[in-house]
Amino acid sequence: MSVTERDDPFVLKTQDARGVVTLTLNRAHAFNALSEGMLAALQAELDAVAADASSRVVVLAASGKAFCAGHDLKQMRAAPSLGYYETLFAQCTRVMLSLQNLPVPVIARVQGLATAAGCQLVAMCDLAVAAREARFAVSGVNLGLFCSTPSVALARNLPRKQAMEMLLTGDFISAEEARERGLVNRVAEADRLDAEVAQLVQRIVAKPRVAIAVGKAQFYRQVEAGIASAYEIAGQAMACNMMDEAALEGVQAFIDKRSPTWAVAEPGR
Amino acid sequence: MSVTERDDPFVLKTQDARGVVTLTLNRAHAFNALSEGMLAALQAELDAVAADASSRVVVLAASGKAFCAGHDLKQMRAAPSLGYYETLFAQCTRVMLSLQNLPVPVIARVQGLATAAGCQLVAMCDLAVAAREARFAVSGVNLGLFCSTPSVALARNLPRKQAMEMLLTGDFISAEEARERGLVNRVAEADRLDAEVAQLVQRIVAKPRVAIAVGKAQFYRQVEAGIASAYEIAGQAMACNMMDEAALEGVQAFIDKRSPTWAVAEPGR
Amino acid sequence: MSVTERDDPFVLKTQDARGVVTLTLNRAHAFNALSEGMLAALQAELDAVAADASSRVVVLAASGKAFCAGHDLKQMRAAPSLGYYETLFAQCTRVMLSLQNLPVPVIARVQGLATAAGCQLVAMCDLAVAAREARFAVSGVNLGLFCSTPSVALARNLPRKQAMEMLLTGDFISAEEARERGLVNRVAEADRLDAEVAQLVQRIVAKPRVAIAVGKAQFYRQVEAGIASAYEIAGQAMACNMMDEAALEGVQAFIDKRSPTWAVAEPGR
Repeated sequence: MSVTERDDPFVLKTQDARGVVTLTLNRAHAFNALSEGMLAALQAELDAVAADASSRVVVLAASGKAFCAGHDLKQMRAAPSLGYYETLFAQCTRVMLSLQNLPVPVIARVQGLATAAGCQLVAMCDLAVAAREARFAVSGVNLGLFCSTPSVALARNLPRKQAMEMLLTGDFISAEEARERGLVNRVAEADRLDAEVAQLVQRIVAKPRVAIAVGKAQFYRQVEAGIASAYEIAGQAMACNMMDEAALEGVQAFIDKRSPTWAVAEPGR
Repeated sequence: MSVTERDDPFVLKTQDARGVVTLTLNRAHAFNALSEGMLAALQAELDAVAADASSRVVVLAASGKAFCAGHDLKQMRAAPSLGYYETLFAQCTRVMLSLQNLPVPVIARVQGLATAAGCQLVAMCDLAVAAREARFAVSGVNLGLFCSTPSVALARNLPRKQAMEMLLTGDFISAEEARERGLVNRVAEADRLDAEVAQLVQRIVAKPRVAIAVGKAQFYRQVEAGIASAYEIAGQAMACNMMDEAALEGVQAFIDKRSPTWAVAEPGR
Repeated sequence: MSVTERDDPFVLKTQDARGVVTLTLNRAHAFNALSEGMLAALQAELDAVAADASSRVVVLAASGKAFCAGHDLKQMRAAPSLGYYETLFAQCTRVMLSLQNLPVPVIARVQGLATAAGCQLVAMCDLAVAAREARFAVSGVNLGLFCSTPSVALARNLPRKQAMEMLLTGDFISAEEARERGLVNRVAEADRLDAEVAQLVQRIVAKPRVAIAVGKAQFYRQVEAGIASAYEIAGQAMACNMMDEAALEGVQAFIDKRSPTWAVAEPGR
């Protein structure tokens, strides 16, 4: 690791009694750039969440004025070899796919800038809430480095021509434009950002963990399949989900016109 | 079938001289829930439309205050076994894919609620028109049953994060939000709903049946293929379509600056 | 070729010192219909751009009141045979895919009508700018010829139900509707159309050619792949891109807080 790797911890973690995990990128002085140390720390935290049956949702947040400015360019420039770059992008891709592979939803909480691999982080989360002044760009092309890996995530969020315009120009879009195009779900005034995230979090933790885990996993599998295969994947997932005691209780409670009795059992599932 | 299956007929059918088939879900007292009986009746009607060369378009409507509230939960809860659920979701999937496989377009006419598999029905139709007060949700997650099979249809209509928000929260979106996100084509005031559907119907029946049938079939095939394969599928379909007498007459009429003479021949094609 | 093939040249070409190539469809009297001659001329010009290392961006423009009205119907109607149509659509598909396969971005500059294969041309360009009064339709179905090959491009730009509505009805949408749905990037008043195109052009030529070429190629490859394969494609492209001298200089300039020194070297790369 290079001399820029003086930050520790790279990622701050909190977890409340409901299983709400907040991971906060903690290199504010460097716009939370994704150095090797940051990527390794983020990977370790995501692996820990995946292994923790009491986790229910992850909020991916960032300290300081920016959400994340992408890769650590000083570190990248210091060691120019093809093998190094291949390894670095593979490490970054593993983090990005871990967000999708987690059994719990991930919500990006975005303030300030989200550029290049920082914009990719937002795109890879299941949901995203942005402060009104947040701005998004895949700006690598301005340095001669097309944001190819971010384009994978971007093209799976935005209409194709809108993704291409961002990738070719490197220009920023506003939070409101990001919402209209599908990159974020909601835009909030800065002083309402946490409340808006909290509202989504509360909607998710009110549901049984297993239903969310089964549903998220099948969603990303079926969305890549042809429609007949997609329905086979989804039908199998739904039949298994229905056999779970939480669903049986939930459906029975609906029939009985009462609230389901999940609350006590949930955190320890 | 369970004791809830007292409704008969489950689906009302009308057909006019133009070949416009209206199928109306007829369990208003149960919010038109998709019981086994309802699914079987709907399948039978769709199979009949597919075999009827005089059919030109299907309007999928519903009686009462709601469009469709999804599966029949009492029936589902009464027989909890994995095999039963697998069979049930396979039966439902067959209905859903039949909408796409029909040689004529299907237009959803949506009032009130469309939830879970009811929202999926809307998503699987080729076109949809909603009353302004209509509301849409994939709300199974509220009962601990993630709407996995509806997610197949939803993810092929809406941007990914917007689909995930609906699936994870179970919350309703309005008709106008459904229009902005791609789930429905048009929103009409309640007293204009039939007129708006009728306008789309008229646009479709004015075209030759064969062109629509060839075009719809190739659309759903090519959209799942890589772009080079997609163009092969589409090019072959278009060449065959051009050799049809209706297209030859239509193109000749355009050159001659007159109306094509399809009207008499069409219903019996 | 039929008697309608009296136009020569079918496509006008200009190229400026920056490598900005403008190709202008030149059959205004026929609404720039894509006759065999026009398709052959367009193919030849695109092949020339692909082979010209000084090219940086293509503006696809059109003379007269319309952008392009699609295939030349008189020519198509004069020789009705399946083999002829298969060959014609294959020729057209080759032109369409050439737009995507070019190493430089293509920007559609759209005034007036863009219908059928003319609308497809817009959809296949990387970016598109439309005059406010421009209108778009896939109107073949009005003649009994479903716009199957245009549907390939349309379905990769617009939400599915919005594409189906255009294909089934043959109706026009406005430039503003085209922008909302993802078919064009920007709408400009007619007297601002060239300025808006010029602004996008300038953003692109300010970047290194190699970054754009690598990025565009991987974008269309990765967008068709599953996400894990997509990341492999993109990661390899990005590692190679980073080893290029333009990216190394661009990143170093960013670190040094100066402008990169690409300008002189670029045109001859």
